[in-house]
Amino acid sequence: MENGNIAAASPDEGHRRPAFGWAARDASGVLSPFTFSRRKNGENDVTIKILYCGICHSDLHSVKNGWQNSVYPIVPGHEIVGVVTEVGGKVGRFKLGDHAGVGCMVNSCRSCHECARHQENYCPGMIVTCNATDADGTVTYGGYSDSIVVEEHFAVKFPAGMPLDRSAPLLCAGITVYSPMKRFGLDVPGKHIGVVGLGGLGHVAVKFGKAFGAKVTVISTSPSKRQEAVERLGADAFLVSKDPDEMKAAWGTMDGIINTVSAAHDVTPWLFLLKTSGQMIMVGAPLKPLEIYAFPLLLGGKSIVGSIIGGMKETQEMIDFAAEHNVTADIELISMDYVNKAMERLAKTDVRYRFVLDIGNTLSAA
Amino acid sequence: MENGNIAAASPDEGHRRPAFGWAARDASGVLSPFTFSRRKNGENDVTIKILYCGICHSDLHSVKNGWQNSVYPIVPGHEIVGVVTEVGGKVGRFKLGDHAGVGCMVNSCRSCHECARHQENYCPGMIVTCNATDADGTVTYGGYSDSIVVEEHFAVKFPAGMPLDRSAPLLCAGITVYSPMKRFGLDVPGKHIGVVGLGGLGHVAVKFGKAFGAKVTVISTSPSKRQEAVERLGADAFLVSKDPDEMKAAWGTMDGIINTVSAAHDVTPWLFLLKTSGQMIMVGAPLKPLEIYAFPLLLGGKSIVGSIIGGMKETQEMIDFAAEHNVTADIELISMDYVNKAMERLAKTDVRYRFVLDIGNTLSAA
Repeated sequence: MENGNIAAASPDEGHRRPAFGWAARDASGVLSPFTFSRRKNGENDVTIKILYCGICHSDLHSVKNGWQNSVYPIVPGHEIVGVVTEVGGKVGRFKLGDHAGVGCMVNSCRSCHECARHQENYCPGMIVTCNATDADGTVTYGGYSDSIVVEEHFAVKFPAGMPLDRSAPLLCAGITVYSPMKRFGLDVPGKHIGVVGLGGLGHVAVKFGKAFGAKVTVISTSPSKRQEAVERLGADAFLVSKDPDEMKAAWGTMDGIINTVSAAHDVTPWLFLLKTSGQMIMVGAPLKPLEIYAFPLLLGGKSIVGSIIGGMKETQEMIDFAAEHNVTADIELISMDYVNKAMERLAKTDVRYRFVLDIGNTLSAA
Repeated sequence: MENGNIAAASPDEGHRRPAFGWAARDASGVLSPFTFSRRKNGENDVTIKILYCGICHSDLHSVKNGWQNSVYPIVPGHEIVGVVTEVGGKVGRFKLGDHAGVGCMVNSCRSCHECARHQENYCPGMIVTCNATDADGTVTYGGYSDSIVVEEHFAVKFPAGMPLDRSAPLLCAGITVYSPMKRFGLDVPGKHIGVVGLGGLGHVAVKFGKAFGAKVTVISTSPSKRQEAVERLGADAFLVSKDPDEMKAAWGTMDGIINTVSAAHDVTPWLFLLKTSGQMIMVGAPLKPLEIYAFPLLLGGKSIVGSIIGGMKETQEMIDFAAEHNVTADIELISMDYVNKAMERLAKTDVRYRFVLDIGNTLSAA
């Protein structure tokens, strides 16, 4: 990983143009205005004027060096939507004025087995949208900024009429839960999906599950979320995980569980909820190891599966499906200068369910 | 679970006939001669004169109350093969003189979803071959005995010419590894299967893997097993798990791993060996929880899966496949009166790779 200043010192400065955003400068994670540069639009590129960017929990990790791999300055943001302002000569899917987005990655090798089967998210050469070094040696800066230049392949088209602010979080939170639901066949009526944790990912999982026609049960430690889950989000049922009778009554009833919890926790109780051959899908990533007993896995042929975002093809399919079925995130739209306060509140999970930065209207004023 | 003496006290003694075997009487696990009774052959039953019975590691657990559920006396043994000596009027698949076997289960509900899809091994009403209470209220006694009576549905036919002593362990060790290899598509040429642990299950996994045409790599802590794995069992490659360079060179190369280790161990290194979307299949059952980091699962969409034996239909398919491809276990054939010594040696994993009791020739003499 190169130093974050490489962009300013790049020898090909003539091929770059100025960009503006907010960056964290150290592990305090405090964000402040930052001037940098992006490459000029290449023949396979689209340039997007950013209108909205979601704040993912991993942005918080990233600016505070939670994974010990942060290189400052960091411009976070990988739930990016906006308007196409420039297209390269070889671009076929986009035209000026289209609504487009960029999610968690901006590049991959394009030649490996994973890329060939449209799983760029598992390409060893996959390059994430922020805090990484791109193929040209420059640092990737995310969507807390005025524009982004990306190869067409890594841009997602948003159908006309789709509300962009509420759709931005689908590019990370949405695809993260949609992809494993599809992979494990949970996307059909008659299936019963459990959702553990009702946050940014969990609330979108409930919406996709319902849009697929499945039965969705939210599982939470907190009985206070019952009304929210059932009445506001449309879940079919709610389980208080601390209630042994409720839990036992649901043993063996679920085809799959989307586990969105990022804190260390005992996953054994969820395994009992699964039917034979069911999957508990981990989309949260606790840093501490999970303690897992083999017996509950063996006795029902059950699986614990990891999953991380999705490929570009299925990300486009997800957005198209969401547009068709009116699946969007529940958001709190905020101005750029509220971002540090938002991060504080996010650390306390004080948001229903996703902060989205109103970049288009508030970035320049910040 | 009823007391083990219920058989002797059963009110329908007139419908029973004497049987003889060896039983453990307490948690010392010491086995000694034991007279009991079995039901007379019903219209759906076959009676098998037992010739051979494998000694599974779980027999050792069972006689020593390792799972805290043992009810004494226990007659262990669920790798049972012999000759059909009686068939009920409604039996269609067996005739007198056929070679037949009984594996890990002797009954299931026959009406649930699992039974309907031929996964009686996951039926909530599945009744195991020893130390359980059968549908008629009697205790199930296993194959360290002269005969067994079982519904035709739970008997497996052994093709003529198949060596019965070496085939007996397939009924547990064999189906335990065969079933998940089939379920996860590892049963085709071009796949790369890792096998962790070279014991009763592991050595049969190598043989099935090779019979499927897959590439098989044995992974072991002990370099001394290399020659054994490659030259005797025909594995394509061998990895010393304690050698970080060897392990790292094999990262991301395996489609699936059969993990046969029953002792608590760190499974993280195996996860790195898997390709994207690969499965680590747990067929051993450590009593202590596994510590599993979510990140290696997430980053490759990988799974940790449990699997336990297989259904009756696939058990028959496995035996037919094994007969066709000359897959049998490597065994040490022993006499009945050697059983306690064998248990001692098994506790030290001092056997290559399965003890099989020569019931037909040595039980009555014991």
